[in-house]
Amino acid sequence: MESKLVLYNTLTRRKEVFEPLTPGRVGMYVCGPTVYGDPHLGHARPAVTFDLMFRYLKSCGYKVRYVRNITDVGHLEHDADEGEDKIAKKARLEQLEPMEVAHYYTERYHRAMDALNVETPSIEPYASGHIIEQIEFVKKILADGFAYESNGSVYFDVEKYNAKYNYGRLSGRNLDDIIANTRELDGQGDKRHSCDFALWKKASPEHIMRWPSPWSDGFPGWHMECSAMSTKYLGQRFDIHGGGLDLRFPHHENELAQSRAAGRPFANFWVHNAWVTQAGEKMSKSLGNTADVLEAVARYGAGFFEAMDQHRADRGIEVLFECHDEELIQNPVTKEIVGCYTLMGDDAKPKAVKASKGVILCTGGFEFNEELQAKYLKCYPMRGFYGWKYNTGDGITMAVAGFAEDDLSIEVKESALTVTGKRAEDEKKAA
Amino acid sequence: MESKLVLYNTLTRRKEVFEPLTPGRVGMYVCGPTVYGDPHLGHARPAVTFDLMFRYLKSCGYKVRYVRNITDVGHLEHDADEGEDKIAKKARLEQLEPMEVAHYYTERYHRAMDALNVETPSIEPYASGHIIEQIEFVKKILADGFAYESNGSVYFDVEKYNAKYNYGRLSGRNLDDIIANTRELDGQGDKRHSCDFALWKKASPEHIMRWPSPWSDGFPGWHMECSAMSTKYLGQRFDIHGGGLDLRFPHHENELAQSRAAGRPFANFWVHNAWVTQAGEKMSKSLGNTADVLEAVARYGAGFFEAMDQHRADRGIEVLFECHDEELIQNPVTKEIVGCYTLMGDDAKPKAVKASKGVILCTGGFEFNEELQAKYLKCYPMRGFYGWKYNTGDGITMAVAGFAEDDLSIEVKESALTVTGKRAEDEKKAA
Repeated sequence: MESKLVLYNTLTRRKEVFEPLTPGRVGMYVCGPTVYGDPHLGHARPAVTFDLMFRYLKSCGYKVRYVRNITDVGHLEHDADEGEDKIAKKARLEQLEPMEVAHYYTERYHRAMDALNVETPSIEPYASGHIIEQIEFVKKILADGFAYESNGSVYFDVEKYNAKYNYGRLSGRNLDDIIANTRELDGQGDKRHSCDFALWKKASPEHIMRWPSPWSDGFPGWHMECSAMSTKYLGQRFDIHGGGLDLRFPHHENELAQSRAAGRPFANFWVHNAWVTQAGEKMSKSLGNTADVLEAVARYGAGFFEAMDQHRADRGIEVLFECHDEELIQNPVTKEIVGCYTLMGDDAKPKAVKASKGVILCTGGFEFNEELQAKYLKCYPMRGFYGWKYNTGDGITMAVAGFAEDDLSIEVKESALTVTGKRAEDEKKAA
Repeated sequence: MESKLVLYNTLTRRKEVFEPLTPGRVGMYVCGPTVYGDPHLGHARPAVTFDLMFRYLKSCGYKVRYVRNITDVGHLEHDADEGEDKIAKKARLEQLEPMEVAHYYTERYHRAMDALNVETPSIEPYASGHIIEQIEFVKKILADGFAYESNGSVYFDVEKYNAKYNYGRLSGRNLDDIIANTRELDGQGDKRHSCDFALWKKASPEHIMRWPSPWSDGFPGWHMECSAMSTKYLGQRFDIHGGGLDLRFPHHENELAQSRAAGRPFANFWVHNAWVTQAGEKMSKSLGNTADVLEAVARYGAGFFEAMDQHRADRGIEVLFECHDEELIQNPVTKEIVGCYTLMGDDAKPKAVKASKGVILCTGGFEFNEELQAKYLKCYPMRGFYGWKYNTGDGITMAVAGFAEDDLSIEVKESALTVTGKRAEDEKKAA
């Protein structure tokens, strides 16, 4: 049970040897998908990253409770043209039912996870299924004086929190800069300060998902679910909180603030994977540059993805690192992967990749200790790895493979591929 | 959209032509699994039965909202030896977490449904995820005067309800007989009458799953989740409520009573599939005579189950009935199925089965109209069909296939198999 893991902790900006709070047990919470669209490769990355960490920790002998949530509290509204009275008269069955949409995309997400050989977590809580827990959490923050009610909604008082704790510590921001950069938004009128954020929102008449609360019929603020569900299942203090780098602010910063305001120490380690970029931009639904996971699997069949499975299946990371023998090199799986590397540019250092060819999918958040590095990674200090193959949409089949000495983002543009450091830049900006 | 379906409605004890409440749309609620054990063939039957109905209704052109719940509000308790104080001091991560158990078996259930080619329903709500809705439901029943609070719990007042409505109508019982047959149980002291049932239960100190409510920290009564979740997603009145015959009493009777007491007309049609018996007894976990679905799939590989898939896959029932041509008879799939029939006894009427060999899995609750019967089922009025193959546990490979002129239960005993009518007997008993 000796710790073999060194984690880069976003909270301390340091690599730290991982030691769990409870000997022999690890609690890990990771932000899962919002289920109102098909999973794309950008969604897949944190799932794969922390799946690997989950397996690795188990292979070390830890009993791991891995919680990954489903965000199904959406913001769907009734068709405005229909008007409230007509809606009230309509049979329930004729209405849009957000849970039907959420269930459909949850299923699609699970299929994608299966295709990627990502194990199911220990618990997969739904935001809509923990409204009571979120309401109780908001009550506690109100009782402790770090929130205020305003017109049926409840807001977190960031300045009051900042006076006692250090708001912005996780994302490397300070409050003055945040205030200077905050845009005025709808509903601003209810807030005392522009940087405050909602813990509970009163629902407008056309808002479909709503629950009774002491303050209004409404719904929880975006950040609340993760604070409530992580601490419900892992305790007020737990080991690892993971997610994509893009969630650091405001989501994780606000999770941390509201949790501490409620007297909960929260996560010991914050681990963030880099995101996937395409043509230089973050891959996300709103940017319209995503690559669909199921489509990729359908297009390339089991081929590439099963290849990953053979190496990864339930054997932990150490075995994966042992896959650099001659026999493996003759394996069609290996050839497939090596085939991907040939499409990579200079930045990808094919020689270095070759040295770690047994590692099919890795992570942006953790690294192995020196002993492991010395044993398995003679060429360079491996920190993260990422590989996929998909269609760019213009008929060109692309192979994508990434690895990292530091956290990297992978940029695909037509037939060229460049890999550039991400965390260093990002932290420079944040500093 | 002309209705091709005649349903046996348990509520009216009649076959009735099915017409939906809202033209073109069908709302169907079916009781899903309790996720504290592996799915067995007895669990699979209602899933398959109503999956077929779901597909059939869709193939008729209906937009179907099919809700099948997951019962994850369990009754796990802390280890009594540990004592309350010690538990309170323990880290959350060291405790038994019921949701971890529930998630594990929910996953196993989903894998089994995949193996059986059962489609996911439109919405799959979790009981633990609808505590607020259940609390609101209890409040309404209290406000309407059909329930009472007692020592932090809330009970349904069956006699008061019976004076206005007809309690026992669904299961064909009358209240006097029910009272005469009610055993005294733990917690009886809080109830006014032995036949009353819990809407909300105050949690004992060692009870793990608990939520705040106006009455106590506790958990909803067993029946409450289905009333709350069906009406939330389908409306106060909806088309079809399904489930196994064994759920008719007390579960469905009480669902119906508490829903009507809250002013909700509830389901128009109640449809019940017969259960699966083994050696003459109902197949259930508590009797220890279950056959594990995943084990069966693992043992026989894709073989038997994929065979089913090929016929059923996404094509609705009508196509299934067209599978009696010569080409199909040469199909290895068909041979596999016919191979099962050879093991069946006289009661199974192999000739009749042969006439419907294209129907791989069917149901105990509905039948086709005369036109369909005349077209596809010349030999006899088909009402239900059931087929599986599994290992009895003593090394004997058994083939099981059933069909029905009326609802049947299938009895497997060593190498003999008998098929006997179930509903007729059951209703005789109930009458």
